[in-house]
Amino acid sequence: MVWCSGWRLASAVSNAGGLGLIGAGSMHPEVLREHIQKCKTATVKPFGVNVPLMYPEIDKVMQIIVEEGVKIVFTSAGNPKIWTSFLKEKGIIVVHVIANAKFAQKCEEAGVDAIVAEGFEAGGHNGREETTTLCLIPHIRKITKLPLLAAGGISTGRAMLAAMALGADGVQVGTAFALAEESSASDAFKLRCLSLPEGDTILSLKKVSPTRIIKNDFFKQVEELENNGASGEELRTLLGKGRSKRGIFEGELSEGELEIGQGATLVTEILSVSQIIRNFVEEFNSAQLSLNPIN
Amino acid sequence: MVWCSGWRLASAVSNAGGLGLIGAGSMHPEVLREHIQKCKTATVKPFGVNVPLMYPEIDKVMQIIVEEGVKIVFTSAGNPKIWTSFLKEKGIIVVHVIANAKFAQKCEEAGVDAIVAEGFEAGGHNGREETTTLCLIPHIRKITKLPLLAAGGISTGRAMLAAMALGADGVQVGTAFALAEESSASDAFKLRCLSLPEGDTILSLKKVSPTRIIKNDFFKQVEELENNGASGEELRTLLGKGRSKRGIFEGELSEGELEIGQGATLVTEILSVSQIIRNFVEEFNSAQLSLNPIN
Repeated sequence: MVWCSGWRLASAVSNAGGLGLIGAGSMHPEVLREHIQKCKTATVKPFGVNVPLMYPEIDKVMQIIVEEGVKIVFTSAGNPKIWTSFLKEKGIIVVHVIANAKFAQKCEEAGVDAIVAEGFEAGGHNGREETTTLCLIPHIRKITKLPLLAAGGISTGRAMLAAMALGADGVQVGTAFALAEESSASDAFKLRCLSLPEGDTILSLKKVSPTRIIKNDFFKQVEELENNGASGEELRTLLGKGRSKRGIFEGELSEGELEIGQGATLVTEILSVSQIIRNFVEEFNSAQLSLNPIN
Repeated sequence: MVWCSGWRLASAVSNAGGLGLIGAGSMHPEVLREHIQKCKTATVKPFGVNVPLMYPEIDKVMQIIVEEGVKIVFTSAGNPKIWTSFLKEKGIIVVHVIANAKFAQKCEEAGVDAIVAEGFEAGGHNGREETTTLCLIPHIRKITKLPLLAAGGISTGRAMLAAMALGADGVQVGTAFALAEESSASDAFKLRCLSLPEGDTILSLKKVSPTRIIKNDFFKQVEELENNGASGEELRTLLGKGRSKRGIFEGELSEGELEIGQGATLVTEILSVSQIIRNFVEEFNSAQLSLNPIN
């Protein structure tokens, strides 16, 4: 949710009955502080902050989270053992994002409060196992009793119901909210993603860090390098700095990095968060009613 | 289901309340005739034949299907317009396997009776869009009213329930039946696949025809060629003839091609088809009971 999930989106989600998350991944520490403060003004409901553990200034980020009294932290892209006890000692609820069963075990050992298990269809950074949400959730459900949120491909109420059928206790929604009115992504990016044809995203950059992006001109350059056996170093050089900002925030559709999930295929218009959540609930309930036992 | 689904597996599925399919893909035409005849002896229930449309002797295969009075044909890996009207004129029900929305449209135009939509997690040959079952099924559901069967990752009752939540009318089960007692795959192959760790299969051979296989020594040779920019021709030479027979049927685990889906992670023992179906129904019904509407 880099360049999408600032205080506006997070507070809108919390105000509409979800748990809004500020995505720290694309923010300098002091920018994060500002977003937390604005979010506290914009909602009286709980909200959280997502922190990718590979973040370069992570000590500062964690300090700000504590100073600002954030109650819930989602950590991702790293080992849950590093920060969980620090956060728990401060009374903060810790949820860790995983993409495989091995990390579910690590989450238990680290003492996290809940798990997000994210499948291959998710946008942006992704697991190396390429396990889809449909296969991942029931497996994680079997090996842990921790509260389990499903992520990856949950862009409709039907997908949310499917996740619950697989054993999830709840869902984490990325793509559908990234394309909401309150997302800070550019309109150009949002419009590019609506009703995205199947096959228009791909899990790319596997030699750097597997990332689901749209197949634009930037991707074609990545693909050409990869087809010619380029090293991770060469790919990092092409990637450079600020590619996702250019793509998502500035709307540079051809040369930017456009991170979005496969679920974008079913997002057909830019709606407010409250409308998106109402649509989820309505579709969830009507699909739930249509499920009958097998005699 | 090459090298798995002969008359024994197909008749067992039909006898247990499913619709058994004989997989013609790995059979010479006269071998297929023999399997159809044995299947008719082994069950009085309906069964079908799956025909990959790229099959080299397809005219002969279709002739045998008609001569032997097969009532249901599943076609895959090709254009549904080529054979549907021929089969329908003979009174045969035609179901076509697709992996994207464009082909759902072609199925409607061709007049097929039902669609199987198969996601990225499926074993063996697979679509180029890499759309997962969770994202594919609700999209196909939106664009066609044809009866819709979900495939890819459906190895448990929970996954079947999820597929129905997504809008499917039924499911096609590959991996779970490929590892059943009645499957003609070798025991060595079945044992290799049980409780398969996440990430042990991969969608490989994309320059030839995307195929989900286990990461064994054969795969490592493919990977090395691919990393060095090998052409489709070079990959076809490495693949040679009979790789999947060696892997699946003969149990040559290191040099054979081991086609299986991600759902193998949740298949923990070799069971009879009737037990597998009972387990599916039981898990489906208990998960269905646990789903409640959102207030």
